[in-house]
Amino acid sequence: MKIVGVDFGGTTFTVGLVDAESGEILKEEQHETRAWEGFERITCRIAEVINSIKEDAKAVGIGSPGSILGGVVKFSPNLPDWKDVPLADRIGKLTGIPTFVENDANAFVLGEKWFGAGKGYDHIVALTLGTGVGGGVITHGILLKGYMGIGAELGHVIVEPNGPKCGCGNHGCLEAIASATAIVRMAKEMKKDFLDSEIFRSDRISARVVMDAARNGDKLGTIIRDRMVDALGRAIAGFAHIFNPQIVILGGGVSRAGDVILKPLKEKVESYLMPSFVGTFDVVISPLLDRAGVLGAASVALENVGR
Amino acid sequence: MKIVGVDFGGTTFTVGLVDAESGEILKEEQHETRAWEGFERITCRIAEVINSIKEDAKAVGIGSPGSILGGVVKFSPNLPDWKDVPLADRIGKLTGIPTFVENDANAFVLGEKWFGAGKGYDHIVALTLGTGVGGGVITHGILLKGYMGIGAELGHVIVEPNGPKCGCGNHGCLEAIASATAIVRMAKEMKKDFLDSEIFRSDRISARVVMDAARNGDKLGTIIRDRMVDALGRAIAGFAHIFNPQIVILGGGVSRAGDVILKPLKEKVESYLMPSFVGTFDVVISPLLDRAGVLGAASVALENVGR
Repeated sequence: MKIVGVDFGGTTFTVGLVDAESGEILKEEQHETRAWEGFERITCRIAEVINSIKEDAKAVGIGSPGSILGGVVKFSPNLPDWKDVPLADRIGKLTGIPTFVENDANAFVLGEKWFGAGKGYDHIVALTLGTGVGGGVITHGILLKGYMGIGAELGHVIVEPNGPKCGCGNHGCLEAIASATAIVRMAKEMKKDFLDSEIFRSDRISARVVMDAARNGDKLGTIIRDRMVDALGRAIAGFAHIFNPQIVILGGGVSRAGDVILKPLKEKVESYLMPSFVGTFDVVISPLLDRAGVLGAASVALENVGR
Repeated sequence: MKIVGVDFGGTTFTVGLVDAESGEILKEEQHETRAWEGFERITCRIAEVINSIKEDAKAVGIGSPGSILGGVVKFSPNLPDWKDVPLADRIGKLTGIPTFVENDANAFVLGEKWFGAGKGYDHIVALTLGTGVGGGVITHGILLKGYMGIGAELGHVIVEPNGPKCGCGNHGCLEAIASATAIVRMAKEMKKDFLDSEIFRSDRISARVVMDAARNGDKLGTIIRDRMVDALGRAIAGFAHIFNPQIVILGGGVSRAGDVILKPLKEKVESYLMPSFVGTFDVVISPLLDRAGVLGAASVALENVGR
């Protein structure tokens, strides 16, 4: 059985034809989103790509940023005219295939459940550490969405009271400390005291540059890594106390830093756990890597039509 | 239809015969637990009371402190020999009535769902502010227990990094700031700087005395109330971001303080919410009051056998 997965973002979208059994991506195309073109034209182009690679696919799954309920994008931060747009319905009509939509962090945790580190588990907490921090939770086998479908905002739990300002308006959210954006911001803010840090030898400061510096023992890199790991550790321990999960899975660009985050993070998480929770779950980095977006999107469809 | 509810605690237990439709408690008896007597004798005495008031009750529900899975008490902090004891099974055998057990905070949220402020809701977050802080969550209609049944420990989410030491070994847990125990501890710790506070005119400092002082505008009472409300507000906003609930319900002795907590708390919660969550749920104090224990316990049975 084949499924189409559409990893839709504000900058690019990727359409993949996925073997539902193996998770192999049989065909894949990436295109620019061109957000300024608006809902009608963008969805036309997405449908065209789907139609060109779909073969006998049984369903289409889409992972999209924003707040999504029942196939409708209620709003999406980087797509100004996407307000209450019937994304699933429109793509379904343009392709003739049943189409299902979830927000990208929810798609991520579904991808892990169907193809990744969450296979066979009914209790999964997932965090995507990218431009922002997204959350996806499967509890008792159910994707946690909440009353209006806007829940699982794990990135907006406050981990540092009176901490750095977050894009959401609050202070000290996990996103304001553990996202790529936050890591870069912290490096820039502390530049004047760490002028000789290797971070500032790069043309462009990125989360990767900062984490590479931490790996090399650079002082500023280490300070930022430690602060991020401490906040993330506290948050994950909290999520564990709440959900009693079997596994916690990290994805997104920042998670690619690997052991320089994961090793100290596991220690931090353990230090913040109640004794009865120690050893009850593992913290891992998503094994899906570049396939996480398309496989997550495909899993949105699988979650609805079955394998 | 009638149901027996057993509100079981380390000091006393209360057995009530409940009308499943109206939630009226038709008969009720309270007895000392005498924890030192051990599992066998205590359960004999509970069963005796059940048998004396049960009439034609269809099921027995028990709310018990501790970690409970499948009717078995894995451990219970104030009942030293209660380790892996088959509580549901034993009471069922001694009474001849199907018996179901949940931890007391889970029983509380079920009681709210069946008889209290959560009637008709599928997304409920409940907190019991007592000796400790317990949590109960219903999400998508399901009682959240987690993989091993030890989840929903909402009292052990860290709200003040490096804050006061909690009984669980961590620092700055919600329980270490918002429980009755924590309120009394804070008053005692700050006594030397507030010797003229009305709190210290009482023979025995209790959470109630502190909250009464706050209501009277006492400086120390207000400081403690504000700190507690701030921590609780941050925690509740976080739970809202995670669960997107329809209602947040407070129970336990501390919640009886009423408006002196609730009014500032609602403002705090709102200040800590992302804009899209403002106005999506209410924060209320349990309307069940003294009936919360028995009705919560009875609801554990109803959740299993239906009304």
